[in-house]
Amino acid sequence: MTGTSTALLTDHYELTMLAAALADGTAERQCVFETFARRLPAGRRYGVVGGTGRVVEAISRFTFGEAELAQLSGVVDQACLDWLADYRFTGDVDGYAEGELYFPGSPLFTVRGTFAEAVVLETLVLSILNHDSAIVSAGARMVSAANGRPIIEMGGRRTHEEAAVASARAAYLAGFATTSNLEAKRRYGIPTAGTCAHAFTLLHDSEHAAFTAQVEALGTDTTLLVDTYDITRGIETAIEVAGPGLGAIRIDSGDVGVLARQARQQLDSLGARNTRIVVSGDLDEYAIAALRAEPVDAYGVGTSLVTGSGSPTAGMVYKLVEVDGRPVAKRSSHKESKGGRKAALRRHKPTGTALEEVVHVVGAEVEEGPHDRRLQVPLLRGGQPAADGPSLEESRQRVRDGLVSLPWEGLKLSQGEPAIPTVYVEK
Amino acid sequence: MTGTSTALLTDHYELTMLAAALADGTAERQCVFETFARRLPAGRRYGVVGGTGRVVEAISRFTFGEAELAQLSGVVDQACLDWLADYRFTGDVDGYAEGELYFPGSPLFTVRGTFAEAVVLETLVLSILNHDSAIVSAGARMVSAANGRPIIEMGGRRTHEEAAVASARAAYLAGFATTSNLEAKRRYGIPTAGTCAHAFTLLHDSEHAAFTAQVEALGTDTTLLVDTYDITRGIETAIEVAGPGLGAIRIDSGDVGVLARQARQQLDSLGARNTRIVVSGDLDEYAIAALRAEPVDAYGVGTSLVTGSGSPTAGMVYKLVEVDGRPVAKRSSHKESKGGRKAALRRHKPTGTALEEVVHVVGAEVEEGPHDRRLQVPLLRGGQPAADGPSLEESRQRVRDGLVSLPWEGLKLSQGEPAIPTVYVEK
Repeated sequence: MTGTSTALLTDHYELTMLAAALADGTAERQCVFETFARRLPAGRRYGVVGGTGRVVEAISRFTFGEAELAQLSGVVDQACLDWLADYRFTGDVDGYAEGELYFPGSPLFTVRGTFAEAVVLETLVLSILNHDSAIVSAGARMVSAANGRPIIEMGGRRTHEEAAVASARAAYLAGFATTSNLEAKRRYGIPTAGTCAHAFTLLHDSEHAAFTAQVEALGTDTTLLVDTYDITRGIETAIEVAGPGLGAIRIDSGDVGVLARQARQQLDSLGARNTRIVVSGDLDEYAIAALRAEPVDAYGVGTSLVTGSGSPTAGMVYKLVEVDGRPVAKRSSHKESKGGRKAALRRHKPTGTALEEVVHVVGAEVEEGPHDRRLQVPLLRGGQPAADGPSLEESRQRVRDGLVSLPWEGLKLSQGEPAIPTVYVEK
Repeated sequence: MTGTSTALLTDHYELTMLAAALADGTAERQCVFETFARRLPAGRRYGVVGGTGRVVEAISRFTFGEAELAQLSGVVDQACLDWLADYRFTGDVDGYAEGELYFPGSPLFTVRGTFAEAVVLETLVLSILNHDSAIVSAGARMVSAANGRPIIEMGGRRTHEEAAVASARAAYLAGFATTSNLEAKRRYGIPTAGTCAHAFTLLHDSEHAAFTAQVEALGTDTTLLVDTYDITRGIETAIEVAGPGLGAIRIDSGDVGVLARQARQQLDSLGARNTRIVVSGDLDEYAIAALRAEPVDAYGVGTSLVTGSGSPTAGMVYKLVEVDGRPVAKRSSHKESKGGRKAALRRHKPTGTALEEVVHVVGAEVEEGPHDRRLQVPLLRGGQPAADGPSLEESRQRVRDGLVSLPWEGLKLSQGEPAIPTVYVEK
């Protein structure tokens, strides 16, 4: 996607607001827009920020060439088109590093610049953060439920083809071991893995012939799919063909817990003690947790990951909170926001366990203890990425560290309150 | 996106299956893969096929250049890389036209070709059809609930930035009037619309100043957002600034039904009898239906549309059903498929009301009445799009026609069984 303009991945009204503000002279007012979630998805105890790296990159491609401007003639006036022709974001962004945990009100991505340059980024920023954060947040719950066992992401077929690539990235960030998505390998260097589909067995004259073909092409350290016909017979054939050194078998249907137990016994009795058992088939974090006591070595997860396991969007908003240094906020019923640019720190016990998320207006007096941690980092300065952003591996480590810092109730899968409260300090 | 290869928007295992099949000579067997949904999303009474046009286009870009092949070295062997370098899909595809209703088991997209050329398309076909069908299916329920009132799609910010473009297209297909997404205008010619955000009012020194700026830039036939501070005062100011010829007001928060009634009275009393009322704010098909008796002129819908209103994926699968003319099917517990290439027709009463979906193995004797309709059309022939596909407008009309043909219970929003049963005929 490098090189392609992202400028039209936005909403009509941002451009008409821009045109009106350019015409009346308010476009150059210095503004602060804050990105945050009013609440976590129903019952969730934490969120994980995903997509920050993608947003920073996408902003660098937010430019209007002739092709983009041609689309906007008729939407905005010539003065606005001229202004857009020179557009590059030149402001500053501070926010939570990718992989950081977040809670209601956490100021995740704070954009400072003129109204004109900041308002047009709203949709792009929200699209990426809302999608990727929804996926990584769901993924982190699955990784947590898997308790150290590896998970393969294989959900690409159940979401938009480009969302699939971003989902593979988000899953890896969450701690998934590998993805099936080849474009995610190309774009982000994420390790790919794959087993086999039922089609491959059905293509052949027998399961024996299919397994033989796969082992010959891919070696014995492959994963044979054993549930096309009869699982017991399938395992027998698998070991017959590959020998007891077979890498793994996969079970994709049925009551996978019971089947895994039977498979383990059978494999052991055939001498294939190191042959791993991979299970898949509509697994989500609850199903993964329920399999904890079963002899499962790895999980394949698809649909539930790419659909955010019931919460496909993080519901973040991008709100104007300051104009020329003056706090502003919507005041009518519902959907109120708190005015003024905010910063945030997370308080911890001396043991490192998180206690509360303190969100405060910049300038308010907030005591900072030795175990507290400032949460915002510079993401863009003068429109340019602030130094090198963290690598995907670093962000992945940040997710792990964040989860370890939660009070133990915070990792429960059941519905509940946020793991730590958000405390607002306005003065 | 034209010109970019789609070949890596696929899963690792498709390529390894291919490599193994090329090595053992089964790759050239003639195969039929069928795309269908085992069931509709929970409680849904119909599905609408979306994405067919996008799939046909994406298949034409499914080619492996040097950049793609470089990513696959290490995944598959040299013989497979050589084969991929020459890859172009040369098979035939029959399927439901975009916008057609579907039911459990409907053969939506049937791919015929060698195993090798057909297996590698699995993920791409499913990604697009699963996403777009989920969105258009949800959108059709909203259009149906809106009962003729226009709906503006404005959900781009709540989904992946590219899924946003596809969602705008799917919403238009479902019968939405316009979208906020500018890239959807560029790519598919969908009309865009927009109102204004709270940020624009907050930017200004007063609501009066903001409304004045907007009306001066966009004319009186614009939509003023009146709920930033106090709605009654906002409407007063709106008419003061724009006069009684104001195009519309938008209410984005609070109990929009009650507020719309009050707003209508106030607007009428101010002589603004033709000023329309647009409501938005977490609307879904149920909220839209509940507003049917209120004086609302248009709806703005975002999150619920782009997330498929609770069903973000259509759950379709791509299954091998025939090899060299011989029907094949998975036979172990659960997730069974029915072997053999299928065709489908929909039976209707003489009045045009749909009665049942008949899915039959090709060659089976099926009586065809004067009111029945064959559902599959040629989509690709020899790898090339079969004539010109339908325009988006034609597919949009097909959705309308389909909904009219349903028995009236089929349009109920409550959970229920599919509107018509699927009848399988195997012999």
